[in-house]
Amino acid sequence: MIAVLKPFVSLRDKAQLVALIEARGLRVHLDGSDGEEWIGVLGEDAQACAAELAGHPAVAELRTHAVPYALASRAYKRETSLVRVGPISFGGPEVIVMAGPCAVESAEQVLATARSVSAAGARILRGGAFKPRTSPYSFQGLGEEGLELLAAAGRAHGLPVVTEVVAPEDVALVAKHADVLQIGARNMQNFRLLQAVGECEKPVLLKRGLVATLEELLLAAEYVLAAGNPDVILCERGIRTFARETRNTLDLAAIPLLKEKSHLPVIADPSHGTGLRALVPPLAKAALAAGADGLLIEVHPDPARALSDGPQSLTFDGFAELMVELRPLARALGHTL
Amino acid sequence: MIAVLKPFVSLRDKAQLVALIEARGLRVHLDGSDGEEWIGVLGEDAQACAAELAGHPAVAELRTHAVPYALASRAYKRETSLVRVGPISFGGPEVIVMAGPCAVESAEQVLATARSVSAAGARILRGGAFKPRTSPYSFQGLGEEGLELLAAAGRAHGLPVVTEVVAPEDVALVAKHADVLQIGARNMQNFRLLQAVGECEKPVLLKRGLVATLEELLLAAEYVLAAGNPDVILCERGIRTFARETRNTLDLAAIPLLKEKSHLPVIADPSHGTGLRALVPPLAKAALAAGADGLLIEVHPDPARALSDGPQSLTFDGFAELMVELRPLARALGHTL
Amino acid sequence: MIAVLKPFVSLRDKAQLVALIEARGLRVHLDGSDGEEWIGVLGEDAQACAAELAGHPAVAELRTHAVPYALASRAYKRETSLVRVGPISFGGPEVIVMAGPCAVESAEQVLATARSVSAAGARILRGGAFKPRTSPYSFQGLGEEGLELLAAAGRAHGLPVVTEVVAPEDVALVAKHADVLQIGARNMQNFRLLQAVGECEKPVLLKRGLVATLEELLLAAEYVLAAGNPDVILCERGIRTFARETRNTLDLAAIPLLKEKSHLPVIADPSHGTGLRALVPPLAKAALAAGADGLLIEVHPDPARALSDGPQSLTFDGFAELMVELRPLARALGHTL
Amino acid sequence: MIAVLKPFVSLRDKAQLVALIEARGLRVHLDGSDGEEWIGVLGEDAQACAAELAGHPAVAELRTHAVPYALASRAYKRETSLVRVGPISFGGPEVIVMAGPCAVESAEQVLATARSVSAAGARILRGGAFKPRTSPYSFQGLGEEGLELLAAAGRAHGLPVVTEVVAPEDVALVAKHADVLQIGARNMQNFRLLQAVGECEKPVLLKRGLVATLEELLLAAEYVLAAGNPDVILCERGIRTFARETRNTLDLAAIPLLKEKSHLPVIADPSHGTGLRALVPPLAKAALAAGADGLLIEVHPDPARALSDGPQSLTFDGFAELMVELRPLARALGHTL
Repeated sequence: MIAVLKPFVSLRDKAQLVALIEARGLRVHLDGSDGEEWIGVLGEDAQACAAELAGHPAVAELRTHAVPYALASRAYKRETSLVRVGPISFGGPEVIVMAGPCAVESAEQVLATARSVSAAGARILRGGAFKPRTSPYSFQGLGEEGLELLAAAGRAHGLPVVTEVVAPEDVALVAKHADVLQIGARNMQNFRLLQAVGECEKPVLLKRGLVATLEELLLAAEYVLAAGNPDVILCERGIRTFARETRNTLDLAAIPLLKEKSHLPVIADPSHGTGLRALVPPLAKAALAAGADGLLIEVHPDPARALSDGPQSLTFDGFAELMVELRPLARALGHTL
Repeated sequence: MIAVLKPFVSLRDKAQLVALIEARGLRVHLDGSDGEEWIGVLGEDAQACAAELAGHPAVAELRTHAVPYALASRAYKRETSLVRVGPISFGGPEVIVMAGPCAVESAEQVLATARSVSAAGARILRGGAFKPRTSPYSFQGLGEEGLELLAAAGRAHGLPVVTEVVAPEDVALVAKHADVLQIGARNMQNFRLLQAVGECEKPVLLKRGLVATLEELLLAAEYVLAAGNPDVILCERGIRTFARETRNTLDLAAIPLLKEKSHLPVIADPSHGTGLRALVPPLAKAALAAGADGLLIEVHPDPARALSDGPQSLTFDGFAELMVELRPLARALGHTL
Repeated sequence: MIAVLKPFVSLRDKAQLVALIEARGLRVHLDGSDGEEWIGVLGEDAQACAAELAGHPAVAELRTHAVPYALASRAYKRETSLVRVGPISFGGPEVIVMAGPCAVESAEQVLATARSVSAAGARILRGGAFKPRTSPYSFQGLGEEGLELLAAAGRAHGLPVVTEVVAPEDVALVAKHADVLQIGARNMQNFRLLQAVGECEKPVLLKRGLVATLEELLLAAEYVLAAGNPDVILCERGIRTFARETRNTLDLAAIPLLKEKSHLPVIADPSHGTGLRALVPPLAKAALAAGADGLLIEVHPDPARALSDGPQSLTFDGFAELMVELRPLARALGHTL
Repeated sequence: MIAVLKPFVSLRDKAQLVALIEARGLRVHLDGSDGEEWIGVLGEDAQACAAELAGHPAVAELRTHAVPYALASRAYKRETSLVRVGPISFGGPEVIVMAGPCAVESAEQVLATARSVSAAGARILRGGAFKPRTSPYSFQGLGEEGLELLAAAGRAHGLPVVTEVVAPEDVALVAKHADVLQIGARNMQNFRLLQAVGECEKPVLLKRGLVATLEELLLAAEYVLAAGNPDVILCERGIRTFARETRNTLDLAAIPLLKEKSHLPVIADPSHGTGLRALVPPLAKAALAAGADGLLIEVHPDPARALSDGPQSLTFDGFAELMVELRPLARALGHTL
């Protein structure tokens, strides 16, 4: 429930309203934009005190929403939120392409990739240092060293970096090196981790779980928002279905649906979404056409020797070609790239 | 297995080769393009006589394929097949949009729709006369009267028509009125029906079943091709998954994958693929960007009163707007529309 | 909607009531048991004339049901329906085991199987003569010859037979030879076929489609019931999910759910439900424990050489052992076997 | 890969063999039973030094396994592992029933439940203190207080307790109070958490993720085993499929398949597996018949007022009745209960 405040309401009236809400066992979330101020009234039983709040002298309008995620809903913010990463904005006219290797393997690998994807037009460098791997015997990432290599490569080529964080105790360390914190699909409902990145000041790239409904994804985002971090980017990365000819089924309808339900920007990951290199370009284009605010694409100098996800990684040339093909498409859709 | 013939092979040698293949319990399929001639060697055990055929004096080259569908495979025909419907070709540079109501309800309804979608740029009129309905108590379509109304509306506005056929015994009747015969998702593995449309001379629009793998879809197409009808258009129309926020999950990766595996043209149905009017335009664009050769879109003069599938039908204005938006996109992708 | 009639209502009043219902565009279905008589009022808009019917002098009670399948619902018949096949009853205390090969291959094969499964305690012989196969090049069954061999093997060992029918035009032929007509999973929504078996006098074994919801299965049964055939046995045979380690996922919760929603007997097919011989015995037991009224099990004299579904077929010994293990279980559950 | 040692091999030879394996970049896991000793050779590249190990004087036999989970595989231990919790053993002849509320809500609630389920025959008390909830606004559990209440209730009625742990930093605290640590479905691939419980000395109850394949589940178990904790109990609790009439689809074929692939005991959770109270008894029975070593069942004194999962919780009477019905079934299957 959202209580939009009257203009020029006094600090005292506001404080009294907040106290009243908290006395009902609910939480408040102060927010605003364009000179309008509102209070998010958070809690499962928020609806029960609607009448009382509607009648309060500080309240101009009470907006209820039928959905269990208050802060993430379109009702909460009517325009799409801009999530800023340095000079870059997710949710605006520019389509933001993030590219890089699945896993950071060496200084050379990540530097060469940064140089190449930057030249081709990528705006953010991706790369994994802490890798959640299905098998305990698979390469688990370079850890802190990987973070340092990634950040150095980004700095050398003027690219902010995004990397995954897999445990609450790592958040501070990862946030020291990364510009955007990624929550992977397997951790979408790791609620302690969501809480931890919610208390952090870096933007969060939240990937949809393998069988998460859109409501579950938005409730996961709500954990981050409710913890105080307003900068969440949602990511469709494929769901698990009966279909066996691709690694996952990229559910592109999720993009316009999420944008209808929520004010948060939404991107797509066609690399994990398909698992097959040849399918990344057509699905990257399709995601753009479906309304994605950005793309996350795996690129590797030598996919055949990648320590992780080689079959879905583009080569440098493949990525550069894709960027050339994406530009006229973005323009036709009214975007820049 | 495909036996490519030597140039200028005599009729007698060819006949002898065919007899040899049939004597091994296999079926033959004579075919060719661009001056090249070949024989499809069909049967589960085709591989067993590879050596014998490779050594035959009439055979220039033997192409084997790892897939169980011989005639539908890319190995069989290396260029995309053009499926012609009057002056229209599926599989060429033009993106073909088919539009119309889910069910033919009345002369006025279908005529008004034909006029409107034709003006907006649709090339083929769609409409159901025999409707396969989940409940025996739902409207089952107007039957033959519906076919006549549809064909008349198409003629009045210069549009060929596509309509569904649901049983072998109806094929002749439907083929009398329709330019393209549609096999619905629920009948994708109705093998008798596939056989029947395979013996007919009209092109077939074959929709993917709700949980069909791509191999199963291509084997369904193989039934039609092996029965002698080379004109099959494949259609991705959404699969059934855990996702509950849309009617189906449109699996757009299927489009480039099918085009890689097969020479047949591939279209998409974003109306059934999503079940929600607001999602039809973004997913129609996404399908185009993923490489679709055409689109099948439900349009109704008054969706709120439609006897079937109202929630996913576009209004006349909605469809006209979509066509305006699709054109620059098609151009950016190197297509015409 | 069900209109329960008053006792001793006159024929004239009954006829007048029927005429009234039909005049509203609805269909009637006269039925009764234990001296009670009722009229099924069928049609999407049945609810609209509830008030009128409730006030009719011949009507004792009006039972509405929230489900779209009237005749299949528990509201329609409160006790489980017995479906009789000669001396055998589905839905009573006895668990009915049907066994036999996936496909009838030869007189020897089906006779030997009949002898063996009969000795082990099977009550009905199964075997396919018309096989719906994914590939046009796979063995399609022996057709009429297969029906004759199956029926002869059944007669020789005192077993009624069940076999699949795949097209409306075959119903009369199959019904001539078979005691129970099976509708396969791929044809669960082949509505013309449902109509055709609904007009036939033989019991129908209706298999759940690969992604059918229970409501869709019950609506498929409703097609048969509404066409006049009251003898439908439902069959859970596994659904298609992401799980790849079995051919299908046997959804055993469907058994008690179907029995709660419907009065029709429900059986399970652990052979197709798992696709793996070693899993048939534990899942057969599980199906019984979940409340199944019967089992459909594939048995073959030499599974390694079966023309269809060898990997999921039990050997004669395997089947006999399973029957020995099932008996104490059935007893513990209050059934006979 | 498993290197079975020769009998009476010297400590020195053994140490030399271990050093050799570690020098190849692999990990070792010393193990044994019944007088036989072996070394698990762990790592993705273990296969590469098979020849070298096979020729080593201390090695009697080298067992390779086609699966990526070495320690969890049946090849590693040929008999089913017994997992002991005080006097109770999972994996032996007794079927172990664990019962209790989804969430610990109060001392009265959990004490009353412990008394009732203990009287009915449950052997372990379950109850959640740290609850992973989809919404940040839902009741999140009583935390440490909940642990204390649960442990006290267990002590009062002679029942060991099982409870969920959701983050690595909580493992020590939960292990102080609980006898078995549960890893929930959403955390099945929370690899840090698996590592943490692997370093703990309490048995681990590992629930299958909502779309985990069996191989993924066994690899999750492998994380725990490789970290040094041999006591893992696997739990099938339902997967997410298209089926909407139950909360999840209980995949009972997983039980015999897991037991074939692994030596670890396997139990089932029919409460989460169905989400509906009426389905818990038939599916509990089915799980037993499919070979489950135990059951996890939600019981609440007043399900209508439960703070979590009320619709799937049994009442005290319902649970007692179920236990009465399970006993003859267990006996018929050769188990005790």
